[in-house]
Amino acid sequence: MTATIVMKFGGTSVADAERIKRAARRIVGKRDAGKRVVAVLSARGQTTDELIQMAEEVSPTPDPREMDMLLSTGERISCALCAMAINDLGHRAISLTGSQAGIVTDASHTKARIIDVRADRIRQALEDDLIVLVAGFQGVSTSRDVTTLGRGGSDTTAVALAAAIGAEVCEIYSDVAGVFTADPRVVPDARKLPVVSFEEMLEMAASGAKVLQLRSVEYARTHGVRIHCRSSFEESPGTFVLGEDETMEHPLITAVTHSTDEARITLTGVPDRPGVAAAIFRALADANCNVDTIIQNEPREEGRDAEVSFTIAAEDLRAAERALEPIRTGLGIAEIDTDSEIGKVSIIGAGMRSHPGVAAQVFETLAARGINIEMISTSPIKISCVIRSDEVPEAVQALHESFQLSLAEVQRERPIGQEAR
Amino acid sequence: MTATIVMKFGGTSVADAERIKRAARRIVGKRDAGKRVVAVLSARGQTTDELIQMAEEVSPTPDPREMDMLLSTGERISCALCAMAINDLGHRAISLTGSQAGIVTDASHTKARIIDVRADRIRQALEDDLIVLVAGFQGVSTSRDVTTLGRGGSDTTAVALAAAIGAEVCEIYSDVAGVFTADPRVVPDARKLPVVSFEEMLEMAASGAKVLQLRSVEYARTHGVRIHCRSSFEESPGTFVLGEDETMEHPLITAVTHSTDEARITLTGVPDRPGVAAAIFRALADANCNVDTIIQNEPREEGRDAEVSFTIAAEDLRAAERALEPIRTGLGIAEIDTDSEIGKVSIIGAGMRSHPGVAAQVFETLAARGINIEMISTSPIKISCVIRSDEVPEAVQALHESFQLSLAEVQRERPIGQEAR
Repeated sequence: MTATIVMKFGGTSVADAERIKRAARRIVGKRDAGKRVVAVLSARGQTTDELIQMAEEVSPTPDPREMDMLLSTGERISCALCAMAINDLGHRAISLTGSQAGIVTDASHTKARIIDVRADRIRQALEDDLIVLVAGFQGVSTSRDVTTLGRGGSDTTAVALAAAIGAEVCEIYSDVAGVFTADPRVVPDARKLPVVSFEEMLEMAASGAKVLQLRSVEYARTHGVRIHCRSSFEESPGTFVLGEDETMEHPLITAVTHSTDEARITLTGVPDRPGVAAAIFRALADANCNVDTIIQNEPREEGRDAEVSFTIAAEDLRAAERALEPIRTGLGIAEIDTDSEIGKVSIIGAGMRSHPGVAAQVFETLAARGINIEMISTSPIKISCVIRSDEVPEAVQALHESFQLSLAEVQRERPIGQEAR
Repeated sequence: MTATIVMKFGGTSVADAERIKRAARRIVGKRDAGKRVVAVLSARGQTTDELIQMAEEVSPTPDPREMDMLLSTGERISCALCAMAINDLGHRAISLTGSQAGIVTDASHTKARIIDVRADRIRQALEDDLIVLVAGFQGVSTSRDVTTLGRGGSDTTAVALAAAIGAEVCEIYSDVAGVFTADPRVVPDARKLPVVSFEEMLEMAASGAKVLQLRSVEYARTHGVRIHCRSSFEESPGTFVLGEDETMEHPLITAVTHSTDEARITLTGVPDRPGVAAAIFRALADANCNVDTIIQNEPREEGRDAEVSFTIAAEDLRAAERALEPIRTGLGIAEIDTDSEIGKVSIIGAGMRSHPGVAAQVFETLAARGINIEMISTSPIKISCVIRSDEVPEAVQALHESFQLSLAEVQRERPIGQEAR
């Protein structure tokens, strides 16, 4: 049976007529190489932002169901245009909406989750020798309404389809050439990684790397979908994201990531009694604020008040304040302080698990530069430090140098049977 | 049972945020007046043209199926935005795609015909006390592809839905206040008609009046749907389009219409044998050229060649030439001449049937102005004259004056039970 691949093109890869034709040629190239192709497309460049602006002009609080009806048009436009371009290249293509492609979601408008993929129509089209283009980022709810998966949801569409049709690889095309040891704009000698594990990629996506949406990596790990992140604008291979068993070697540290779009909220005078923290974070969850690092200082003396600090995305700061204000008096919290001048630098590496000295080296490196660490959070394969946002670039450079990430110490091999054949 | 009305808003009526809010208020006004409302929306202002331009940038001959996927997004955007605006006014609205609204069509992409309206979802939404917004101009084919109904198809969507749900009236909102005795830009004292019959409206739509799409009038006549053409920007009643039995009185002449976007093709040296005309017009039909007036001059002597002239829409001229060229030699046609400087002026009136002197008065009126008539075609309630395009305005003014159309000689009554209650 002919192998199937899923190719996903991001917004910058379909931003104008020339780029759509380029994507079409790339898709046709795969078909000519003997693959069956399902391509998932994002909305063109600024389309989604323009649609959001239209909604804001009409309504201060757009209805979520209607927002989904509105936003889902962007990807359909990309797909229809790309199908036209492919047909002109002498191949037959068919574009499908998320609904037509069988992406079934729950009814959480603007942030729906995929609950089923009924890919019969895609399979039939592939059988009929068609190239299938699917509008990313969208699906249809069980109550037959159009839904969207949230920003960056096209990655998840691509991975979910790859899982459903048993694709040999899910290629994610964008304007970056792969996953790097650090952001090349901050660290000029950052190195492109041939392979990272799902676990590392998850930590990287969660700590600031923008190459893949977190949810899509989770989905890929759960369903064993191989991802290949690569550039729309060059032919060279990018970075494979694979299971740990396939990644061959585990270097100590894989990459340094960073983020400057975070904010911190500190609650002081928090009564030291059971249920207070639960009430705080329930209110934040209900307001859809994703809390990252949490630090609670136990009071030094029995009965004294505690202090709770946590970080959230900067864009959620206002929503978080609105969520906390009404419960503040009831809980007896003294003060709510906010700080939007914070940043986070993280080092990630699956090999860290078996090397105890990593944390000490991180702290020493930052201390040597005079960078003060305000909060720390760790996982078995990640150490994150919250610092002042203006010190983030220097911290990234220092850690990248300290762990010698520009040198390919351990040359990871490309997994067998992939792409470069 | 609560009465239901269908309201259709054209592109200029939803062209920007302010106009969408205005349409929303108008819709909510009807709901507050106790009606159930289904509103059909067109794409915003220039949206369709912009989408067509995008397609042309990508492909010289866009695939029709993909063209439909592309173009259908415009109306969805309008509907989603208007639903948001209605929700902000404290009412609950739901937007539906043509497919969700149950508009089932054949598979003739870009010019599909409605074959069924399965309005269960609309009925359920109305039962649930929702205002229903439907994306005009589109449907879903029996093979589950998105289709469009051709330019102006939103009128047809509105009429088809009005028929399916038994609406008491189908209101067509646009930037014109109704149907006039002539184009007010050409004849400043043209008068707004309170009522016209379906038959008159069909002739008017076919001869240049742009207020309603021809197909929608046919559909309304067949299914007995009352149409009310009115302005989005003022409250006063517009023009009702009704069955002849409801229109009370038949004035001699109802209106003068005109068109300057026509072209004429003349075939000379056409062999005088059976089957030649059939071959010519089959080729034009296959190329989708809608032929209007046809004139064939019988050869004066047996065996001599004939001359065939016909008019088509100016935009179809190139397609017609391309269609005729390949069959020309085979049929033995001597020459194909084209003339795109022609126009047409028509007078329409159901009362004409019983008044034989109308044609003579038309010809005398034009002759008195020195306007040469190049072709004539008639129906029981219409007389059309093909003249030079630059003489069209004067011809319209002369006929409007000659038949005293600015005077409401016969005051037609507004039909009982409509609108102005």
